[in-house]
Amino acid sequence: MHSLKMYRATGGICKLQRVFGAAQCRTKVLSVENMNPHVKKMEYAVRGPIVIRAGEIEEELRQGVKKPFTEVIRANIGDCHAVGQEPITFLRQVVAICTDPDRLLNDPNYPSDAKERAQRILNSCSGQSIGSYSDSSGVRVIREDIARYITERDGHPADPVDIFLSTGASDSIKTIMKLLMTAKDGKDRAGIMIPIPQYPLYTATIAEYNAYPIGYYLDESNTWACNIPELKRAIKEARSECKPRAIVIINPGNPTGQVLSRQNIEEVIKFAKEENLFLMADEVYQHNVYAEGSAFHSFKKVLMEMGPEYNTMELASFMSTSKGYMGECGFRGGYCEVINLDPAVKVMQLKSISAKLCSSVSGQAVMDVVVNPPRPGEPSYDLFIKEKDFVLGQLKKKAEMVTKTFNSIDGISCNVVQGAMYAFPNIKLPQKAIQAAQAAGMKPDAFYCFQLLEEAGICVVPGSGFGQVEGTFHFRTTILPPLDKLTGMMEKFKVFHENFINKYK
Amino acid sequence: MHSLKMYRATGGICKLQRVFGAAQCRTKVLSVENMNPHVKKMEYAVRGPIVIRAGEIEEELRQGVKKPFTEVIRANIGDCHAVGQEPITFLRQVVAICTDPDRLLNDPNYPSDAKERAQRILNSCSGQSIGSYSDSSGVRVIREDIARYITERDGHPADPVDIFLSTGASDSIKTIMKLLMTAKDGKDRAGIMIPIPQYPLYTATIAEYNAYPIGYYLDESNTWACNIPELKRAIKEARSECKPRAIVIINPGNPTGQVLSRQNIEEVIKFAKEENLFLMADEVYQHNVYAEGSAFHSFKKVLMEMGPEYNTMELASFMSTSKGYMGECGFRGGYCEVINLDPAVKVMQLKSISAKLCSSVSGQAVMDVVVNPPRPGEPSYDLFIKEKDFVLGQLKKKAEMVTKTFNSIDGISCNVVQGAMYAFPNIKLPQKAIQAAQAAGMKPDAFYCFQLLEEAGICVVPGSGFGQVEGTFHFRTTILPPLDKLTGMMEKFKVFHENFINKYK
Repeated sequence: MHSLKMYRATGGICKLQRVFGAAQCRTKVLSVENMNPHVKKMEYAVRGPIVIRAGEIEEELRQGVKKPFTEVIRANIGDCHAVGQEPITFLRQVVAICTDPDRLLNDPNYPSDAKERAQRILNSCSGQSIGSYSDSSGVRVIREDIARYITERDGHPADPVDIFLSTGASDSIKTIMKLLMTAKDGKDRAGIMIPIPQYPLYTATIAEYNAYPIGYYLDESNTWACNIPELKRAIKEARSECKPRAIVIINPGNPTGQVLSRQNIEEVIKFAKEENLFLMADEVYQHNVYAEGSAFHSFKKVLMEMGPEYNTMELASFMSTSKGYMGECGFRGGYCEVINLDPAVKVMQLKSISAKLCSSVSGQAVMDVVVNPPRPGEPSYDLFIKEKDFVLGQLKKKAEMVTKTFNSIDGISCNVVQGAMYAFPNIKLPQKAIQAAQAAGMKPDAFYCFQLLEEAGICVVPGSGFGQVEGTFHFRTTILPPLDKLTGMMEKFKVFHENFINKYK
Repeated sequence: MHSLKMYRATGGICKLQRVFGAAQCRTKVLSVENMNPHVKKMEYAVRGPIVIRAGEIEEELRQGVKKPFTEVIRANIGDCHAVGQEPITFLRQVVAICTDPDRLLNDPNYPSDAKERAQRILNSCSGQSIGSYSDSSGVRVIREDIARYITERDGHPADPVDIFLSTGASDSIKTIMKLLMTAKDGKDRAGIMIPIPQYPLYTATIAEYNAYPIGYYLDESNTWACNIPELKRAIKEARSECKPRAIVIINPGNPTGQVLSRQNIEEVIKFAKEENLFLMADEVYQHNVYAEGSAFHSFKKVLMEMGPEYNTMELASFMSTSKGYMGECGFRGGYCEVINLDPAVKVMQLKSISAKLCSSVSGQAVMDVVVNPPRPGEPSYDLFIKEKDFVLGQLKKKAEMVTKTFNSIDGISCNVVQGAMYAFPNIKLPQKAIQAAQAAGMKPDAFYCFQLLEEAGICVVPGSGFGQVEGTFHFRTTILPPLDKLTGMMEKFKVFHENFINKYK
């Protein structure tokens, strides 16, 4: 129970510092007292104390320690292959051929369209090798393929010059946010509007860059929509604390699973225009839309169709290979399309990524398959569609099942999981549980989630790691485990929750 | 000549801002005037204006423009495969199998040892897929293999807990440097000692983080050794400007190609101890040592053998898959071993990388092969050794040839290329050339290098991009093109240089 103990001593890490500080740190150049204070402030709940504890429990299970369960179900992170999702055959074929072309370009077991794709990527690599650096913004043909994908998706032209590849989406989100910093303190800090709840990369990056997070609450009573009066309240209150510069929108939502309506997107764009904000659209879940009546509308498309007053606004849109139907997290592929950027700022943006040299070229190759999949008539088309539809079909079933199950439990309500890979149910905790949590020095939702882990072996992330309205409690669970395992998990969850409520009622 | 023109207007980018600023930037949220000033200050010469111009010339050649040459020789960047180096067969086999294991684990064309390596890596990946996220610090068995490699290299134990993988070495260099920041301005900024000349990642990162670069000049008259009185001068002068916190040593040297003697390393360690500095050893060229009598000594090994007064010092050592004999730049593999870190700071360091999720798992797999190559008796051993020895043997020949040729030219002197992949010759420029450069608004070495590019199609990086003693002029050239091409390049260079000198004498 090491990490639990650490966690309980709120600011447990500070305690650790004090313990080690006196004896071991005296001679150190770098101590917690004199290290970068912004790094100290960072939090990243998706890999926080509860996940560390899950790893310890797995180790205990391996060592034969008896538990009320035989394995930990990791529903804390959107890591598809880790919970058994199979890779897309065509995608892996293309990347394998790029990796060992001498052998596999001539291998009769590999389909011709995979070979053509690989050869085309290699032709665009220096020395025809994915072992050479690409341009800092990425391999040229891959950027062209991305531009074509966006053009087909939106019905509006995209320019490869506006696109750069990155190490997952996280890396390009940080690149854009870095440009927006003022490098000043206090009231002159850059303010970045972020949804609450949010994906914790945003608060972590804002802390690292010493910016100011302007949290706007998503409307839980209206399927987590962006509520414009709430946006106005948030920015108004923040003006005395910072210089607001950008607004982040996550659509489909993480951790909330909503898909914004076109009208809501228009309202957000109008708000950003009025407030002179740079738009940052996190659209990594654009392939993950399940609910009847929901559809993905890119910010780019909506903005373009809102006419001349809006179509010159600065917008960065982020995409990843880690989500969608492919779930290729480990390859760290991602891209950003940034439009209407001041040309002189673009020069600076390119310079700023050049010192990183380039993102993984194999990750770039994965992205190429995502934006340039097999077309009808090509040999790999049927299998590709079958595999893609299977993954998305299963996710749709799981989204429905999870929503339904949560809402069938007394004291839990959960918005429809319209998209993305998560549910973010609202849990009513008994007063006695809240008191017990406080006595243990823990946040009530973390207290609940730690017990869920210890008693049922289910690892989810407390809502406090994403942010939530004061006095409400949530957790984020992925919907990724295979349907039968997820069904079993929900049954175990139900039992746990009833026991928990009875224990503290 | 667009980029040349840009460059000529020293701070050419600022001019660009002014040109666009008035007309186009008025309505922008983000302009060069209000963007992050630290990003504006960054420079990264290896991909600077001369390299942009090289790309333009290549495009002109493709369009049929007549030039005194038919191709640009890119000697500006350590990008081995881009100039024709072949990948190591075993390495690519392991990564290809990891990518498409269903097919290739059973392919009789792949050797059993490559299959075993791949299977072992996959067994350590969640869901047995390189498409899943690894731990933030990397795949467990790969970190174990790295620890074993370091232990065998140094004869001193290494602990997987002290190792984390990263996107190339650049990424972990930034991670460590970030921890060392004070987040304060003026005299309270962190000071980082860096060699002059240096690899421009360091000045770029120092600018981005608003730290203070404490340049110490390497001793050109003593094969670019670290001169201790010079280190003392540098830190003494810097104390009024910053809080010195760390010293960076690049060994083997980039751009200088020296290999530090063991005694010199001991002296640097003693200096760091006296001055209470964190040691950052950039050792990415540890496999690249060519000169008779030169040998690579890791800072870790030397520090460990200096006894109890020194073996508790904080040291970070950086390694990459991009250099050595493998030259796998595109996979973006890298690692850092950091020893003697305050345990509480280590918690912070792990937290700070967790928001990035992980580095590319295929890049991690490449690193695994580098630290765990085929052993004698394994089926791939002979071919592996043959390929490795060929690359390193060629580099040794090229290092000798380049040193000899430069020193045979009047007005040029060049230290022996003992290691790494670069020569950094000293060029005596005639007074008239210096005046002509000043008239063109360019630094004299950049003026020289631009002409070398325009007239001979040879792309190298001016010494001013790395730093040099005021009034001296250098450039960095790689020694990577194939021997016959490099020989041809040196002949063309000789002709160019003589013409240049005659023109301005």
